[in-house]
Amino acid sequence: MTDLSEDTITKIRASFAAQSLMTLIGADMTRLANGSCQITSPIPDSMRQQHGFGHAALTFGLGDTAAGYAALSVMPEGHEVLTAEIKINLLAPATGDRLVAEGRVLRKGRRLIPVEADVWAEQDGKRILIAKVLGTMVPVPIRTAAT
Amino acid sequence: MTDLSEDTITKIRASFAAQSLMTLIGADMTRLANGSCQITSPIPDSMRQQHGFGHAALTFGLGDTAAGYAALSVMPEGHEVLTAEIKINLLAPATGDRLVAEGRVLRKGRRLIPVEADVWAEQDGKRILIAKVLGTMVPVPIRTAAT
Amino acid sequence: MTDLSEDTITKIRASFAAQSLMTLIGADMTRLANGSCQITSPIPDSMRQQHGFGHAALTFGLGDTAAGYAALSVMPEGHEVLTAEIKINLLAPATGDRLVAEGRVLRKGRRLIPVEADVWAEQDGKRILIAKVLGTMVPVPIRTAAT
Amino acid sequence: MTDLSEDTITKIRASFAAQSLMTLIGADMTRLANGSCQITSPIPDSMRQQHGFGHAALTFGLGDTAAGYAALSVMPEGHEVLTAEIKINLLAPATGDRLVAEGRVLRKGRRLIPVEADVWAEQDGKRILIAKVLGTMVPVPIRTAAT
Repeated sequence: MTDLSEDTITKIRASFAAQSLMTLIGADMTRLANGSCQITSPIPDSMRQQHGFGHAALTFGLGDTAAGYAALSVMPEGHEVLTAEIKINLLAPATGDRLVAEGRVLRKGRRLIPVEADVWAEQDGKRILIAKVLGTMVPVPIRTAAT
Repeated sequence: MTDLSEDTITKIRASFAAQSLMTLIGADMTRLANGSCQITSPIPDSMRQQHGFGHAALTFGLGDTAAGYAALSVMPEGHEVLTAEIKINLLAPATGDRLVAEGRVLRKGRRLIPVEADVWAEQDGKRILIAKVLGTMVPVPIRTAAT
Repeated sequence: MTDLSEDTITKIRASFAAQSLMTLIGADMTRLANGSCQITSPIPDSMRQQHGFGHAALTFGLGDTAAGYAALSVMPEGHEVLTAEIKINLLAPATGDRLVAEGRVLRKGRRLIPVEADVWAEQDGKRILIAKVLGTMVPVPIRTAAT
Repeated sequence: MTDLSEDTITKIRASFAAQSLMTLIGADMTRLANGSCQITSPIPDSMRQQHGFGHAALTFGLGDTAAGYAALSVMPEGHEVLTAEIKINLLAPATGDRLVAEGRVLRKGRRLIPVEADVWAEQDGKRILIAKVLGTMVPVPIRTAAT
């Protein structure tokens, strides 16, 4: 995390901690750098779909969050980030010991920050790609954080 | 719900009840018909993003679920449904008394079922469109429900 | 077209006429209103895929254009529109006498204009929905029209 | 191209040659391997948008085609490929000497083949990423190539 200022790291970690859903999931921000972010999470029993796999909403939420904080890491002072749109392709069931989402900024735009994320399922030290995310984050001045 | 067989209704309601995430959210299936489904949900305090609005993963999960059961309502016997991909555009913050997601089948394909969903936020009897969903569901024989 | 000023109509028609691809296709802007736009097009022999149907790029281009001018119709003076992202679900082959794309604004945002479009194939007066489009347009001041 | 059989290479090149739109564009298949494909193209004067940049439909068409033939390269005998859905994020204007689209298979599924593509604009030997594509291809038996 050496390529980010202490202020930026503090701001991002505070924002992540303020997301009650991330607390409920038990997710951690396990890596943060200039333009990228990694979120690691269990697959809670309470967040499954009808076959007992992790719900698509869980996979989506981790990918969205990793991509969103990747975007926030490159934004100017005094700005927050909102998700404008996200597309997710689900490649394999969310199962195993834990999920790891890795978000990246594709371009540091002034109006828009296109992002992508990979979501992996890890079991016994092996990992499988379970989802690909492609989306758009929007910088908004902190005073008017609602779109 | 008169245009669906009792068997289909029972199968879909059992599948919905088996989704632990829907129970955790406190979501209800409030309408079900041939090719459409409505899910109604509170905005739990535990599922917020950093500004206190409902998390995008909540909105996504409701839209995905409404669209998925809309698809299951038109599938042949002995099939389950998996989400292949979903795109969501977030139009306004998830706030208010409750969220309502309305899913529809766009085309009853054999291999693929394209679907859409609208997600609304309701407050004091008024509703605002907060998200648009466009995705693809895939029928899979029940024995091999994992993609 | 009575709900748009003459200036806006002139600006949009000039912009459409400046798209060399629309001229090559032989596409027409057949309806324009506040927040919506219809483009009608042949399926040129030179724009087919390997089975002889209209290429997905043709269907995409019509949907993008209808959605883009729907967005431009609601933008403030002195702004152009750029496509930030588009998702298209292809529902049926592009075949028949002509294609008709109908674009709509979903929300008149200041930073982003989410849009959707339906693309229809018409034959002998009947029409089939061949594609659904969901995307995001961005207003940019005319001087700096490149993102 | 040594990892593909002569039959597969012949089939794919014949399919590409049968796309009249690729001929109209003047696009070439400049690389083909097991699970990936590269398409290189000029930016024809006749395929521009209103600012003189390459039209989004051109960028889309190249990305779709590169991704589609990447998918076809991993399909079993006797199958064709159809695009089910594609999402494209446009990152920069399509300008320069030529465009290069690189498609990749994300997972070799039986029912669905998720794919991605990058589209680059090259000028004076330098290249800029102008678009990211994430989509789904579907294998269909050759007899019933229409969805």
